[in-house]
Amino acid sequence: MTTPQLKDRILSGDLRALARAASLIENQTQAGRDIVASLFSQTGRAAVIGITGPPGAGKSTLVNEMTRTLRSQGEKVGIIAVDPSSPYSKGAILGDRIRMNEHHADPNVFIRSTATRGRLGGTAESTMELALLLDAAGYNTLLVETVGVGQDEVEIARLADVTLLVLVPGLGDDVQAIKAGIMEIADVFAINKADLPGADRLESEIRHMQSLAPAAQRQESAPIRRVIATEGKGIDDLLAVVRVVYQTRGKKQQAELWSVRLREMMRDRLLRSLSEEDLRRHAVKVAERKEDPYAALDHLTSAMLSVPENKA
Amino acid sequence: MTTPQLKDRILSGDLRALARAASLIENQTQAGRDIVASLFSQTGRAAVIGITGPPGAGKSTLVNEMTRTLRSQGEKVGIIAVDPSSPYSKGAILGDRIRMNEHHADPNVFIRSTATRGRLGGTAESTMELALLLDAAGYNTLLVETVGVGQDEVEIARLADVTLLVLVPGLGDDVQAIKAGIMEIADVFAINKADLPGADRLESEIRHMQSLAPAAQRQESAPIRRVIATEGKGIDDLLAVVRVVYQTRGKKQQAELWSVRLREMMRDRLLRSLSEEDLRRHAVKVAERKEDPYAALDHLTSAMLSVPENKA
Repeated sequence: MTTPQLKDRILSGDLRALARAASLIENQTQAGRDIVASLFSQTGRAAVIGITGPPGAGKSTLVNEMTRTLRSQGEKVGIIAVDPSSPYSKGAILGDRIRMNEHHADPNVFIRSTATRGRLGGTAESTMELALLLDAAGYNTLLVETVGVGQDEVEIARLADVTLLVLVPGLGDDVQAIKAGIMEIADVFAINKADLPGADRLESEIRHMQSLAPAAQRQESAPIRRVIATEGKGIDDLLAVVRVVYQTRGKKQQAELWSVRLREMMRDRLLRSLSEEDLRRHAVKVAERKEDPYAALDHLTSAMLSVPENKA
Repeated sequence: MTTPQLKDRILSGDLRALARAASLIENQTQAGRDIVASLFSQTGRAAVIGITGPPGAGKSTLVNEMTRTLRSQGEKVGIIAVDPSSPYSKGAILGDRIRMNEHHADPNVFIRSTATRGRLGGTAESTMELALLLDAAGYNTLLVETVGVGQDEVEIARLADVTLLVLVPGLGDDVQAIKAGIMEIADVFAINKADLPGADRLESEIRHMQSLAPAAQRQESAPIRRVIATEGKGIDDLLAVVRVVYQTRGKKQQAELWSVRLREMMRDRLLRSLSEEDLRRHAVKVAERKEDPYAALDHLTSAMLSVPENKA
């Protein structure tokens, strides 16, 4: 199927065409990029909600419940799960999650995962591309769930219009450290498992950290909402707050968001264009102390700049 | 002080000169890179042990106990803590950790943190540079502790000669997912808090995942050791196993390690050389749908390639 044919079918609501385009994107093919480029003028209507937070925060359950509420409001929902797959798991863990999602069979809920395959980047770009594809296909709320809370996951959450940071009471000091690293990206805080002891303390910790932000950077503090995802409690209210944030901040910050997105896509592209052979050759020299690492980097930069960008 | 002067003082064991060089590196200055380049021929003698694992695994306590044991064996120990600092925390959390470390006042233990400042990369490079500095200064065991377990932290752990993955029983399914993402980087597993229920189950899960590795990639399975860091139990044995892995694998894989290291340093360098102004200009166009993201990336790539590498 040609790109224009695929594009027409996607715009007419053909789910098989949509799934095919999603696979082209997940496999990081040029055909995937072509379809996204051809659909790009039709995008910009969906609200993209990034959902991040530490392990054990209950993000998947929350996404499931948010989807249920959004569907009851008549929204078409896209779910993109960013999957830390590995040679060991082959993405199986997130595959299980998707099959367990109760909305799995609903044609108005489109669920895909984008995997962190290898170390050469591509996740941020694939995530963006899937979001643009689903946006063009008429899914008006997109939930981008990341597993884990490292910088890469945080970066991916930042690609969203609104970033929801899910925390739970009582995860200990290490989690406090991580929270500190990602506090500033949260547009909305969800305190999940809010019936657990420590929810009050967690909320006051968040407010305390918000009060410590440098005055120059401080904007209106991100709202905090309590939910119990396993019981569906607080989801309506959380979604209402997310919607308010989206409507007041989302659109006017589109250029800023695109700066972040383009930077991430650039990083992916640059890492792909580095020659493995050159890298290995210089690594041997450095390991033997025949070259220092900076000299190696200078050579690698020159080599990279002298070849045309790899579009494959 | 000139680079040659600073170099001489560091090699003669001057701790103030060492601290000064460490600051130059942490601030990502050219002077920091110069001192590392000048010392590079003196490096390659230290064992670099990366310590990673999920929040709550007790990594800091373990590092403290490993340091105590190493000191009793007469080793000089360098500790590099990779800190997810933010405008909120300003690295304060890890600062507290360092002050709490009982070896803080021991001149044969040199402790520094390298922070994730902003989003422009630099952490991998600074971490590497601190390790090379301490190596040249005669610290023969370097412990690189990362907070969190995202891909960036995993990358940093991989810069080490031996990567120690610290896990604890009973952290739930999300942690299982994360483990799947980082299983393959572990050279040694430490099951900390091994007196908790679930230690047997965790060990058999690790063995099961090891058995699932594709045959082509499977090497000798990474050893698993149980410790109770808070009581100092199992530390001797753990260090002995780490040493064996270092001696049998460490040196022969130096070129491979340098491939990973150079790639990470390259990523940092490339992100620094992207023009903020160009990025913003194209982001506005894309946000207004006057340009698609791929066209923007093509323009940004051309612009980046046409300016000399920023060495500042």
